[in-house]
Amino acid sequence: MAVDMTRLFAPRSLALVGASNSFMKWGFIVLANILSGGYKGKIYPVNPRGGKILGLDVYKDLRSIPDEIDVVVVTTPAAGVPGAARQCAAKKVPFMITITAGFSESGDEGKRLEREVAEIVRGSGVRMVGPNTMGIVGTGARLCALMPPVKPQPGAISFVAQSGNIGSQLLGLGQVMGVGFHNFVASGNEGDLRVEDYIEFFGEDEKTRVIMAYIEGVDDGRRFLDVVRRITPRKPVIVFKAGQTRSGARAAVSHTGALAGSRDIYDAAFRQAGVIKVSATDEMLDLARAFAYLPLPKGNRVGIVTWGGGWGVVTADACEDAGLNVVPLPTDVIAKIDSVLPPYWSRGNPVDLVGTLNREAHRVALELIVGCPSIDGIIALGIFGAATFFSELVANASNLSENVPPELVQTYMKEIRREDEKFESTVVTLMDRYNKPIVGATVIRNPQAERDVPRQVLVFSTPEKAARALWRLYEYQRYRESVHRET
Amino acid sequence: MAVDMTRLFAPRSLALVGASNSFMKWGFIVLANILSGGYKGKIYPVNPRGGKILGLDVYKDLRSIPDEIDVVVVTTPAAGVPGAARQCAAKKVPFMITITAGFSESGDEGKRLEREVAEIVRGSGVRMVGPNTMGIVGTGARLCALMPPVKPQPGAISFVAQSGNIGSQLLGLGQVMGVGFHNFVASGNEGDLRVEDYIEFFGEDEKTRVIMAYIEGVDDGRRFLDVVRRITPRKPVIVFKAGQTRSGARAAVSHTGALAGSRDIYDAAFRQAGVIKVSATDEMLDLARAFAYLPLPKGNRVGIVTWGGGWGVVTADACEDAGLNVVPLPTDVIAKIDSVLPPYWSRGNPVDLVGTLNREAHRVALELIVGCPSIDGIIALGIFGAATFFSELVANASNLSENVPPELVQTYMKEIRREDEKFESTVVTLMDRYNKPIVGATVIRNPQAERDVPRQVLVFSTPEKAARALWRLYEYQRYRESVHRET
Repeated sequence: MAVDMTRLFAPRSLALVGASNSFMKWGFIVLANILSGGYKGKIYPVNPRGGKILGLDVYKDLRSIPDEIDVVVVTTPAAGVPGAARQCAAKKVPFMITITAGFSESGDEGKRLEREVAEIVRGSGVRMVGPNTMGIVGTGARLCALMPPVKPQPGAISFVAQSGNIGSQLLGLGQVMGVGFHNFVASGNEGDLRVEDYIEFFGEDEKTRVIMAYIEGVDDGRRFLDVVRRITPRKPVIVFKAGQTRSGARAAVSHTGALAGSRDIYDAAFRQAGVIKVSATDEMLDLARAFAYLPLPKGNRVGIVTWGGGWGVVTADACEDAGLNVVPLPTDVIAKIDSVLPPYWSRGNPVDLVGTLNREAHRVALELIVGCPSIDGIIALGIFGAATFFSELVANASNLSENVPPELVQTYMKEIRREDEKFESTVVTLMDRYNKPIVGATVIRNPQAERDVPRQVLVFSTPEKAARALWRLYEYQRYRESVHRET
Repeated sequence: MAVDMTRLFAPRSLALVGASNSFMKWGFIVLANILSGGYKGKIYPVNPRGGKILGLDVYKDLRSIPDEIDVVVVTTPAAGVPGAARQCAAKKVPFMITITAGFSESGDEGKRLEREVAEIVRGSGVRMVGPNTMGIVGTGARLCALMPPVKPQPGAISFVAQSGNIGSQLLGLGQVMGVGFHNFVASGNEGDLRVEDYIEFFGEDEKTRVIMAYIEGVDDGRRFLDVVRRITPRKPVIVFKAGQTRSGARAAVSHTGALAGSRDIYDAAFRQAGVIKVSATDEMLDLARAFAYLPLPKGNRVGIVTWGGGWGVVTADACEDAGLNVVPLPTDVIAKIDSVLPPYWSRGNPVDLVGTLNREAHRVALELIVGCPSIDGIIALGIFGAATFFSELVANASNLSENVPPELVQTYMKEIRREDEKFESTVVTLMDRYNKPIVGATVIRNPQAERDVPRQVLVFSTPEKAARALWRLYEYQRYRESVHRET
């Protein structure tokens, strides 16, 4: 049975042991991050000195808080952590998040202290995140109990990282890219809860549609694979495994003490367990949002629709290199596209829209390709986010010309944006109707605001990324089919 | 001899034949882009109707302009282009940029028209860019004679693209990433000037330190390779060759009529000619700026300095996968680092700074690694752009706390920024002193403002990209050594 972590990621009440008024202490910074993140529950700062911190009443110890506490965050010096753990046990707090460092990562005395804390916690009913964790995020409760000032937007991805640094930086990159998260945890030294415990909970958590993990090493490989194997037929599990080369493995031993197996052994085990393995940090986010918001393609046959010919060539290369099949178009589809495009369009796949500004022609061509029974997935280039391009153009021109009445510019810009939104909602409708993924690729585009909806238009920053994402969706679809055939 | 294109990219005077007051015509948009780009020379709009456009006096034809003209930009309908070419010849205009489409890309009549224009131009002393070009950029004269509203910042890279769309979008991505350009040209249908002519000029152009090309096909492969081979021993030439798979080659034929050779043949020819071949669109920019601003490493031995352990593991993997050697540190270097870091630092390569906030320790550790004779290049993680992180932290805290006086925050933020600048200038000094590349990698960082200086700190968005860039610098260094050994 998975540990039920609902209250860890969405606590009704939270205490911060080690809260501080001192500007450069983690007991101040973490509290400031929780407050500025807009946490919905009650917050109780704890410090033996009492007083007020950031406008909140400070309690001298956990016991004196007149309320049940779902989560205790600890930022005291390491020597104070065993005491804090005992207080948590006495108050029957279900979860303790030990941000404090100076445990097994820092030498023999730290190892001893970590064992001591683990023993207090074990059997007391308290479950611990960390020690030496950068913290957790639960966007359902708007909880950002983190050391760095990152505020992820809500989404369908839950993420566990064996490096808080990598985890929080990917959350930050997600903010820039418009990738939202449901839960995040930096597992720290894993004195109690381990990476596979979090994954197991995410597997059962309804709001999590995609699981993402950064891993350096697992203590119990068999349990890890058992947990993952039970989840992957229902939910994608995306794993970045660090420490796979000789140099990387040496660095991992020094960082988390992780003993790395060889890359071949991991690859084979992951493949068997249906893990979606990624090999670059930024690929994790690209794939996670593809799995969160796109239907899985039934085959590897791809249709390319492009505003300009050059990107069509690059994308065709990228598709073939990724394993996708850029299939010929049926003659009836070519004939139908003939009626909306200039006679010198490519008359094949990629469909080169030869730069036409006619949005209706874009829509018709796209719909014909999506509806084509011999095509499983679509990459569309240059036809999403056209508003950015045109509004810059219009702004430019209107700033310079005395001949352009401002009202006209306003009307025109509004129309461009409306057209863009209409176009995107058409695409979502098409994805739903035909149950096929349609992905965009546009080199320059403002970050997307990810919305909390099951289907949306995703625009990748390069066609290479779009092609690789489609291929991974297809691979996972094949895995799922093979599992279901067996059972 | 290369065609001297100095006046093409930095014209003293420019005429726009087909200039228009009509908001949605290219004759208006291109003129608006030239004006808003801040072009330094004189501009003469030409339209038989006369009047004024964007505040400028309009001339009825080229002949009536009382000035010498270095460049004529043409946006008339295709049928008007032969006439414009004859006017250019009569006025002894050295360069004509034909933006107008409807030539060989649009069918047989277009092919005939393109031949007609080429014949008029040939022998008349006029050299033509295009037809069907998206235009050119010359940041020396602040000239943005382009269809899309892109305004690149100045830099050391010159770029020719056989797709205007890909070219201009990479310029736009450069704006976001902080990559500057010296010259850019979309070669269009290459009715007269061809991709190798531009490369040949860039090879002789003093302000160009790196040449970048997007290529679908070359008409005269032998000449292309001859041109490139003469440049690469002095100046890096980075090429993205599209149309390398079966699907891509098919798409290229339909786009530019390019006949693609097999990937193996291109790879062999490029290798022989010392071309730096890239296989992803975004890699072009990453490599171009690496070559523009970093010294070449003498070997493949790399030192990694990281603020946090996780990124060290990922980077060690990325280095080994890229072909770099993460070498052990000499014991005397370890001993010296011992004196500035906590006792539980990694005591090896990667140098894990275990999160210390002490900037002086960062500097000392970095300098020891750079000075190490057994290390040829350095990747530094998390220690550049620390200001972004800290200023968010401080802003957060100060917004929330009544205990933080605003003056203190101001002072603190200023100090953080000054420290960052000081740190970056130290790194530039180290690069110069030891003549070794030092590259940063930070997942989240505001775009860099590229400065027009020969050495600067480059920060890549992932450690994988930093490692690959270092490897490509080393490969090129080896190529140069082998050429110089032969001669």
